[in-house]
Amino acid sequence: MNPSQGEIFNGGVTTPKGFTAATAAAGIRSQRDDLALLVSESPAIAAGMFTTNRIQAAPVRYCRDILSRAAPVRAIIVNSGNANACTGAAGMRDTKRMAAETAATLDCNADAVLVCSTGTIGVPLPINKISDAIPGMPARLSQAGGDAAARAIMTTDTREKHVAVTFPVNGVPVTIGGMVKGAGMIEPCMATLLAFITTDAAITPTALQSALQQAVDASFNRVTVDGDQSTNDTVLFLANGQAGNTPQLVPEAPGWDMFTDKLSAVCRRLAYAVVADGEGATKVVEVTVRGAVDAADAAKAARAVARSLLVKTSWTGADPNWGRVMAALGVSGAVFSEDRIAIAYDDLTAVHNGCATDIPFATLRKVIEKPAFRLTIDLGGGIGEYMMWSCDCTEEYVRINAAYMT
Amino acid sequence: MNPSQGEIFNGGVTTPKGFTAATAAAGIRSQRDDLALLVSESPAIAAGMFTTNRIQAAPVRYCRDILSRAAPVRAIIVNSGNANACTGAAGMRDTKRMAAETAATLDCNADAVLVCSTGTIGVPLPINKISDAIPGMPARLSQAGGDAAARAIMTTDTREKHVAVTFPVNGVPVTIGGMVKGAGMIEPCMATLLAFITTDAAITPTALQSALQQAVDASFNRVTVDGDQSTNDTVLFLANGQAGNTPQLVPEAPGWDMFTDKLSAVCRRLAYAVVADGEGATKVVEVTVRGAVDAADAAKAARAVARSLLVKTSWTGADPNWGRVMAALGVSGAVFSEDRIAIAYDDLTAVHNGCATDIPFATLRKVIEKPAFRLTIDLGGGIGEYMMWSCDCTEEYVRINAAYMT
Repeated sequence: MNPSQGEIFNGGVTTPKGFTAATAAAGIRSQRDDLALLVSESPAIAAGMFTTNRIQAAPVRYCRDILSRAAPVRAIIVNSGNANACTGAAGMRDTKRMAAETAATLDCNADAVLVCSTGTIGVPLPINKISDAIPGMPARLSQAGGDAAARAIMTTDTREKHVAVTFPVNGVPVTIGGMVKGAGMIEPCMATLLAFITTDAAITPTALQSALQQAVDASFNRVTVDGDQSTNDTVLFLANGQAGNTPQLVPEAPGWDMFTDKLSAVCRRLAYAVVADGEGATKVVEVTVRGAVDAADAAKAARAVARSLLVKTSWTGADPNWGRVMAALGVSGAVFSEDRIAIAYDDLTAVHNGCATDIPFATLRKVIEKPAFRLTIDLGGGIGEYMMWSCDCTEEYVRINAAYMT
Repeated sequence: MNPSQGEIFNGGVTTPKGFTAATAAAGIRSQRDDLALLVSESPAIAAGMFTTNRIQAAPVRYCRDILSRAAPVRAIIVNSGNANACTGAAGMRDTKRMAAETAATLDCNADAVLVCSTGTIGVPLPINKISDAIPGMPARLSQAGGDAAARAIMTTDTREKHVAVTFPVNGVPVTIGGMVKGAGMIEPCMATLLAFITTDAAITPTALQSALQQAVDASFNRVTVDGDQSTNDTVLFLANGQAGNTPQLVPEAPGWDMFTDKLSAVCRRLAYAVVADGEGATKVVEVTVRGAVDAADAAKAARAVARSLLVKTSWTGADPNWGRVMAALGVSGAVFSEDRIAIAYDDLTAVHNGCATDIPFATLRKVIEKPAFRLTIDLGGGIGEYMMWSCDCTEEYVRINAAYMT
């Protein structure tokens, strides 16, 4: 289940050719590095997906606008410690100033710079601190800077999360790299967290957006930590073509399936890492619903189980309390017959035809004690299937979130 | 906000004339009293509301069936410690046996006995233990038995919750009493928990059901502890007519408004008590959304805020983190403009036109430190309004639910 198989390795956003990064400590909320600058040496095309929350942070609205112009992108500037959300007109002014000042130091147009922010909502961005830190960053840009960038974008994350993969496209080696931050306020829907993906592949803009949507749907949109959706969720994907593969990648053409498979693998690896580093989490659970009347119903059922607070606290206690799974299924809106439901923990069937089997609690408990296990629910009513990753909810989650702001 | 004003007093289900109760220790999960029998001396009419969960416990399905026959009711037998849910055909057999054996000891028809169960899901009901305990109960029936009954139906509740009120209907004193259990798996929708309401009023069956629906919508349907809906939620309302008011109560007739007001007051008092005794809860928050385009949108917004785990943990830390309230509003599905939102903690306006006011965090924090406060959200877009009661989510909640079953 842990999507760490294959030729994926511990690179990141600067592993593809022509990408560099630098960080700085602007002092936004602490003294650690809290600014990251990601640059493509040559103009890149960009695709993005954003939160569906009705309330969207200034940088989210800004990036949507920039991407709609389809102009070449040179850089992304990211700050942690402050979300620049619910900050009114001043928030948008600050975002544009971050872009303009970054562009000035890189000698490019302001609309070639994307901006992301993550952290506390509703607090004015300390733009002067950021402004003071930006000019020194370009001189420190390097390929080795990717690791530090993955750390600089963290908030309550306990570890950096990044990955890369290299594979041939029509005989030419192409690389995809990515980094992500996110540990709480995690239940993305159509977009998520802050994730940055880079590639040196030559690819058309519409193909880039199409590949990203497909990969995000199979990865970031399938995780939940606490069921709360952020105002800042953003996935950005830059491609600078420096791998030199010809012809450019387009859907259905040679190399396309390989490229989208690898992109999905990168996104799945990063999404899994988010859940594994979920605030206070001690275990990751792969929740699969099959046998639903269709995939949409399977998704409803999986989401209801994966986000149920009672289900998640039962995992904390290594408690095979499948009754809570049944209760969550029952309010999911999915259609099924109670007397056809089967529930398994890894390969142990705890429920058959809606009732307990004779596997002892103590045996089931051994599965749930593991740091990762599968919870598989068969509704017995069709071929609809959906998978999500969730984590347990611990006292530590409450401690973190009772103390986060003040 | 605490609905404890007025002439409500600490009676319960046996305060109305002609109702008695008894308890017994059947040893279902522990050695304390876990069976409660509530009896009306004379035949009563009954109304009920039930969980909307697709998965319904055997006693829920049984009670629905009994009420559909509109036959007179004499008694309710309730067990705690086992929900008799997800127990298949054996579960329904056990429920019917509880009814039949109770009826035999009371010398009435089996369909004059309602049955409720609450506790762990998916474990076979220890029917023989219950069967052994029932015959001794009628001899212990008394009006004083109401207090013990309110304790016998508890699971993770820390205290019994019951109330009564007496008031004149056309010059005749009428009494309504009630008791409720519930502390977790609480987010009822159209019905809730286990709640039992009794009255000695003379009232028609359709009027009884109508009054109950109206009262439940304004009380039990407005509370959330953890956003999880139970398989066993049940509210039963018995009326035996022993007060002797004439004519019988019917909608719009003299005395009707007084009766429904008092019934709502009883239900609101009990619903508030459920949230105040929510698992691990240290404070109750009245979440009101106004200025929505309509009441349905206000309800969506209030429910999203009241059940957000991040909002609830911020209350635990006395953290005026209204950004989490904004994020929850944004995914609620309610329609609004971010720049018109106002948010107040009690009478302190923390957010105006979607941005922070200049009230210091330390001042806001003093409100959130209180054991009860109001969170009022004005969407600035209409006259739709809705109120809900919620509680904070603490480390103790996680401890309780990581340990509940095993």
